[in-house]
Amino acid sequence: MFNSIMLDVAYRLLNHGPTVLVTTAHGEQCNIMAAAWSMPLDFDPPKIAIVIDKKTYTRELIEASGSFAINVPCCAQAEMVVQVGASSGRELLGKEADNKFAAFDLPTFAASKIAAPLVAGCVAWLECKLIAEPHIQDAYDLFLGEVVAAHADERVFSNGHWHFDGHDELRTIHHVAGGNFMAIGEAFKA
Amino acid sequence: MFNSIMLDVAYRLLNHGPTVLVTTAHGEQCNIMAAAWSMPLDFDPPKIAIVIDKKTYTRELIEASGSFAINVPCCAQAEMVVQVGASSGRELLGKEADNKFAAFDLPTFAASKIAAPLVAGCVAWLECKLIAEPHIQDAYDLFLGEVVAAHADERVFSNGHWHFDGHDELRTIHHVAGGNFMAIGEAFKA
Repeated sequence: MFNSIMLDVAYRLLNHGPTVLVTTAHGEQCNIMAAAWSMPLDFDPPKIAIVIDKKTYTRELIEASGSFAINVPCCAQAEMVVQVGASSGRELLGKEADNKFAAFDLPTFAASKIAAPLVAGCVAWLECKLIAEPHIQDAYDLFLGEVVAAHADERVFSNGHWHFDGHDELRTIHHVAGGNFMAIGEAFKA
Repeated sequence: MFNSIMLDVAYRLLNHGPTVLVTTAHGEQCNIMAAAWSMPLDFDPPKIAIVIDKKTYTRELIEASGSFAINVPCCAQAEMVVQVGASSGRELLGKEADNKFAAFDLPTFAASKIAAPLVAGCVAWLECKLIAEPHIQDAYDLFLGEVVAAHADERVFSNGHWHFDGHDELRTIHHVAGGNFMAIGEAFKA
């Protein structure tokens, strides 16, 4: 169902600007949040930049573990993206379902190089190691990561290119505001 | 044809991840380049982050002028985006058409708060003042800007939301690699 991607084309998983899910794990703790503000930062080795607000539990787990995963969700998951974006994992600590994966019944699978779980049903995944830059983390909530492994759903990404035709439910989603999204649309060559 | 946008919703012009054009001016010099790697960085005051390679003439003009504009192009302009992305303004210096606007016959109009020209036919524009962060500029080619004015084509963006229905030629474009783009697609609420 998914293929591992050569690292030199990993940037293409984010190049078109999808809204993403950030997953994290440290010890027994794990979390997931939605993030609209991410982008590629370099080709080789691939790096990415992402904005992670100070108040998020995700930030605590990134800083503790030094790693995180970027999961690229699709249209079929849009409602879940809003749910995990509107709730805090910190508030679940000590409850019976003590993390958002349990609370929202989200299936995951293991990453290859980091502890963070990867979200099943997404169409691409980038496993990242934090590049510590304390000044910009503190001043701008801006986090940098090196992509150490990447994977994609071969139904919609192969040979370095997206191909969503016939798979509308797997199209990436692009948030505007307040749960209003646009799906990625038609491919063309200029 | 275009409306000025309240700064507190300016992030929505970039939130869905379009490929953009960066325009710059300093003294008699001006330039335009394509950039797929940009994102919002904050809401209020709005800030953005963008990757600008060391070898670009655009970078020289940003560092000299302390400002730049982000223009959001549309499907009708995709060929031009590839053209300005594949050529260097530095190589035109001293020629009869001594900048890319002249060489490619690109109509522009004046920005309200910065010197950089804005590209006519785009669907949104963000006027930015450089937030100088020399370490990340040098180490990662990563530039931050504060958005000091923003505008959008009222046919496709008004009341804080995009509405592309009936205007397919004005849809934003999202680059994958090598001139392969996807247009932004259907809007939906999750």
